[in-house]
Amino acid sequence: MNATKSAQYRVGIIGVTGYTGAELVRVIHAHPALELSYVAARETAGKRLGHALPSTRGVPGLADLVVESFEPEQAAQLASRVDVVFTALPHGASARAGAALFEAGLIVVDLSADYRLRDVATYEKWYGPHPTPALIATAVYGQPEWHAEQLRGARLIAAPGCYPTSAILALAPLLEASLIEHSPIIIDSKSGVSGAGKAPSQSSHFPETAEGLRPYKVAGAHRHLPEIEQELSRAAGAHVQVTFTPHLVPMNRGILTTAYARLRSGASADQCRAAAQDKYGSGLVSVLPADSWPDTLHVRGSARAHVGYGVDVRTQMVVAVAAIDNLARGASAQAVQALNLALGLPGETGLPEVALYP
Amino acid sequence: MNATKSAQYRVGIIGVTGYTGAELVRVIHAHPALELSYVAARETAGKRLGHALPSTRGVPGLADLVVESFEPEQAAQLASRVDVVFTALPHGASARAGAALFEAGLIVVDLSADYRLRDVATYEKWYGPHPTPALIATAVYGQPEWHAEQLRGARLIAAPGCYPTSAILALAPLLEASLIEHSPIIIDSKSGVSGAGKAPSQSSHFPETAEGLRPYKVAGAHRHLPEIEQELSRAAGAHVQVTFTPHLVPMNRGILTTAYARLRSGASADQCRAAAQDKYGSGLVSVLPADSWPDTLHVRGSARAHVGYGVDVRTQMVVAVAAIDNLARGASAQAVQALNLALGLPGETGLPEVALYP
Amino acid sequence: MNATKSAQYRVGIIGVTGYTGAELVRVIHAHPALELSYVAARETAGKRLGHALPSTRGVPGLADLVVESFEPEQAAQLASRVDVVFTALPHGASARAGAALFEAGLIVVDLSADYRLRDVATYEKWYGPHPTPALIATAVYGQPEWHAEQLRGARLIAAPGCYPTSAILALAPLLEASLIEHSPIIIDSKSGVSGAGKAPSQSSHFPETAEGLRPYKVAGAHRHLPEIEQELSRAAGAHVQVTFTPHLVPMNRGILTTAYARLRSGASADQCRAAAQDKYGSGLVSVLPADSWPDTLHVRGSARAHVGYGVDVRTQMVVAVAAIDNLARGASAQAVQALNLALGLPGETGLPEVALYP
Amino acid sequence: MNATKSAQYRVGIIGVTGYTGAELVRVIHAHPALELSYVAARETAGKRLGHALPSTRGVPGLADLVVESFEPEQAAQLASRVDVVFTALPHGASARAGAALFEAGLIVVDLSADYRLRDVATYEKWYGPHPTPALIATAVYGQPEWHAEQLRGARLIAAPGCYPTSAILALAPLLEASLIEHSPIIIDSKSGVSGAGKAPSQSSHFPETAEGLRPYKVAGAHRHLPEIEQELSRAAGAHVQVTFTPHLVPMNRGILTTAYARLRSGASADQCRAAAQDKYGSGLVSVLPADSWPDTLHVRGSARAHVGYGVDVRTQMVVAVAAIDNLARGASAQAVQALNLALGLPGETGLPEVALYP
Repeated sequence: MNATKSAQYRVGIIGVTGYTGAELVRVIHAHPALELSYVAARETAGKRLGHALPSTRGVPGLADLVVESFEPEQAAQLASRVDVVFTALPHGASARAGAALFEAGLIVVDLSADYRLRDVATYEKWYGPHPTPALIATAVYGQPEWHAEQLRGARLIAAPGCYPTSAILALAPLLEASLIEHSPIIIDSKSGVSGAGKAPSQSSHFPETAEGLRPYKVAGAHRHLPEIEQELSRAAGAHVQVTFTPHLVPMNRGILTTAYARLRSGASADQCRAAAQDKYGSGLVSVLPADSWPDTLHVRGSARAHVGYGVDVRTQMVVAVAAIDNLARGASAQAVQALNLALGLPGETGLPEVALYP
Repeated sequence: MNATKSAQYRVGIIGVTGYTGAELVRVIHAHPALELSYVAARETAGKRLGHALPSTRGVPGLADLVVESFEPEQAAQLASRVDVVFTALPHGASARAGAALFEAGLIVVDLSADYRLRDVATYEKWYGPHPTPALIATAVYGQPEWHAEQLRGARLIAAPGCYPTSAILALAPLLEASLIEHSPIIIDSKSGVSGAGKAPSQSSHFPETAEGLRPYKVAGAHRHLPEIEQELSRAAGAHVQVTFTPHLVPMNRGILTTAYARLRSGASADQCRAAAQDKYGSGLVSVLPADSWPDTLHVRGSARAHVGYGVDVRTQMVVAVAAIDNLARGASAQAVQALNLALGLPGETGLPEVALYP
Repeated sequence: MNATKSAQYRVGIIGVTGYTGAELVRVIHAHPALELSYVAARETAGKRLGHALPSTRGVPGLADLVVESFEPEQAAQLASRVDVVFTALPHGASARAGAALFEAGLIVVDLSADYRLRDVATYEKWYGPHPTPALIATAVYGQPEWHAEQLRGARLIAAPGCYPTSAILALAPLLEASLIEHSPIIIDSKSGVSGAGKAPSQSSHFPETAEGLRPYKVAGAHRHLPEIEQELSRAAGAHVQVTFTPHLVPMNRGILTTAYARLRSGASADQCRAAAQDKYGSGLVSVLPADSWPDTLHVRGSARAHVGYGVDVRTQMVVAVAAIDNLARGASAQAVQALNLALGLPGETGLPEVALYP
Repeated sequence: MNATKSAQYRVGIIGVTGYTGAELVRVIHAHPALELSYVAARETAGKRLGHALPSTRGVPGLADLVVESFEPEQAAQLASRVDVVFTALPHGASARAGAALFEAGLIVVDLSADYRLRDVATYEKWYGPHPTPALIATAVYGQPEWHAEQLRGARLIAAPGCYPTSAILALAPLLEASLIEHSPIIIDSKSGVSGAGKAPSQSSHFPETAEGLRPYKVAGAHRHLPEIEQELSRAAGAHVQVTFTPHLVPMNRGILTTAYARLRSGASADQCRAAAQDKYGSGLVSVLPADSWPDTLHVRGSARAHVGYGVDVRTQMVVAVAAIDNLARGASAQAVQALNLALGLPGETGLPEVALYP
């Protein structure tokens, strides 16, 4: 497909056979300015990528890449082979790998949670000791619609979490434009099972999930909560707290977030849509017209997010809804979008936009 | 299976080949005091039930029943053949059939919306002209845990809607016990597709649904809203309004409702659980212990509901969750539970309680 | 539900929290002559059943049973508490438990593969050393439609495997009636994921399965092959070999088996249906009329199997199709059906027949 | 994404809002030599594509295209606007539209069945009167791996059916290389529901499909049968007949075909793989190594097909398996691949190869 592309940047992926790694391969392969040159994953090291990741079987330029085993001490050496590295490792390990690569002069895009939270104490409360806290201030939170300026030239990018992405895209414009009260803010999110990652577990075992639907980490227990509050607070210009409930839904990809807040006196649903439209313009977030609502089916495989707004005029509650593909917009495609901005390219460069439908 | 049962009541189902009709067949067949003696459905009239409803193929006592075509003018004649009739027809038609049967002396359990709303004007706003408004006052709202006394001896029972059932079971105990504020009350419900009924439509077409997730009838547009508010207001002893968002989820059966309200000062999650436990006792609603949450997988095919409670101590918001099978507890099994009470039997008599797992 | 039942037999289940164990609980709970009195499972020992198996939460008579930890040396002691034990353990362990219980005088129904194969050498080729080979000759293969006579009074019953059940029900009548050639016989089976059991694995991880479809253990590699051939050979009165391909399908319950064989000269599809009808009569296997085909949706949760037949008149190949619920007819309900016969009860006693639809 | 592409060919799609139309949009949008310039669909005429097809919402170059209403008499006029037209209409209508466009000088790729069958009588037996039989001889059957030479310069291309594509890719190499007997050939195919198209029907209604699995059009009744036999006969150099059973599986995209035939004496599974490898080389069909089997999960959204082979050495039956995405390789991506060859481009030009995983 890319015989004629003249990529300017050589890219590596560490953690290539996890789900966000696999999605990075798909996105990078279609990107005109990026060339996948290095792939690593501990458990499949030594195999060809086409074997380790059957979705690339037979694909020229991908299938024959050999999966390597990355250790942080190889960072300097790796700097001669690639320009950019995506780290898609468990937290802690990701910070260590990213720090070594960053110090070796590479551009690093970290898909773990390690560099998302600005406050070390908050990080350590939720994730345990941070291996490289000194780098937190250097990292840029890679939500492209809200941090475009900081991303320009950034060399250490923290790709946002999937739930936070959906919540920010839906709610931040309303907070920035002072259209909603700061309390209560309810975020009811529904996620496909790929968000749980590739490692089997009881809760992601097919028979336990295929015809079931359940909340988990209810009432302030999910690690994405502080990330959501950090970014909504930035948009609001004030400390906001939210009630966040994630749910596991029997589908593969997709997050639908339905958020609720009280409309400020005098505001309207039209103003909510206008605020989002002003913010997102003709970029990768589509603001739906009145009475249209996002559907994860319409963004599957796409970097694009859909947001929609309504107001129950009786209760004066805003309903703000976002649909994203948790692996594309919620992780890998958004990470590449952030990298595009860091590299000085238009954010949407090379990204999949047409959803796989149906 | 029932060779030895000595049923005391002969039962008819009008609208037997729809999904609630089919579920009634399953529940009634296992019930020791009920015997299915009459089945009707316009589109399959003349066929054997085993052919019209393949889930009954070959089953003694069911497969050979002939599906008939019911007209209200046959009500008196039908009264000689059955003691109880379940009407599972579209609204309007159901009221007309039910009125004729009720006047012919039969016990009528109506699974449509026709006799649920106490206020005719409210009914007519959402559903159009009511064909038999004079009967509304006679009908009993058939939610067994909340209307057990009125149900005793009732002869016209309005079986509750699926979404209202889930919302009432989760929230009414908290309102009755004055544990939550009356505003805002957010009800975020997720339903399997069988709730849309048996008639094919674009939104229930498999490829449009199987990997999608979407809200619909957002911000006060769903017909179940007035029913929810009617019953929550009864429990609260005051007029309450809610913000209700139904979602369509790619699974067959099940509703999970996640509701949010502000905890009253001094109240706690333990008190919420205790209030529900006091209300539901050892009946067909299980109150889950702290940190356990309902899952539709655990109630599939069962008359039982699961409810669970938590509080986000930072925001003081209660999260109240209910899981039901929309066709069993949300329609047909609950309708039989209400009939049991009307007949003077224990509510749980003959009902499926062990869920089909997995 | 069963307040009034006067069970004559006390039943134990060893391995109660696996999927076939859970299904046994559901089936036994509804059975008028059986009472669940003992449950064991190593990993949940000490918990209440309602906690270990949330599908029984709150159910009177079940939820409060304490899960115990069974060791074969407790067999004699257990004999004072129950009359019948179902063993649903991994092979090897199941044989040992079953042998101890059988020798203690109990009726044993083994849901593992341990007592299915008549030939020890065949067993050991596929499963490794048999711990109690001397008992194999005593065990009765518990396929009720084909071994009803041997089952009468049997005290050690080997419940058939799920794939073999579907293949036998479809093909054995044609072989017995000499309607098809003995070679080639192609058995193409498609199974829901619950057949893989409750332990998580990569191949049953939701994201790996939900939108995928694949064969496995192709070309003579699946352990159910010798069991299929054993039983088809009995029906044929000659040694037959089959080509068997199992597939994993993204659904929870159900096996659909599509089998192919060459019609004997002069035979017809009508004769195939007649042979099956003669064999199965008005029992728990429904023979579908011409141009109707089995669907797993129509047997979910049911002990009933559906079989259908057609002939491609151009190629003279018979297409024989069976649909079963792999956990009900393919395991637990059929095991109880076999027990019914062993106890001198009609086979269908107490079994679920109306499918959960949809 | 395509800011820099300099497309050489302007493309139209008639029937753009059906599933194969939507998939054409996705594939063409990513293709460097094609530009989508015209879209038509009767039922959504007048709307913007971004509205009619939400998977394109907001996408520059697509969302603002106005859906038009095509009539065959507009063919000459359309010839000034586009170079190539894909017709994705019901059979009959597609032939008429294609004929008019072909005669107006356009390159036509027909995704219906109208120009697939070489023999008019066969067509008319299965589909009724052919509106433009004189053009059949002109049309090229657009299976790229088997008709590459005829496709060069072709101006009327019949894109193959989904089931035939899977069957041909798996079996034709074995027939061409004389590795299997010509009888019996069993083709057991399992398809996702998107193959049924976008129009709702009872059989594709979510609740009827989501947990069900069934064969349909069994024993020689499916319209794809003559197409399969036509192409396998070409490969075999002799008239072959097959027994073909399609099944509907609860997933969205994907066909898995498991085919069975008797190995010719002296042949082996290795030879089967070698024959396929020789035929397909490094192109868009991957031949899996021994003991690896195709999975529809690994080709979702991809133009690539996976095939695998095994032999049951006891029965000497070959098991040949193919996995494709029914909308990509089974329809739209393969249609573009055929167009690529017609235009003198490498077949794989611009096609999606990396599967959407998971």
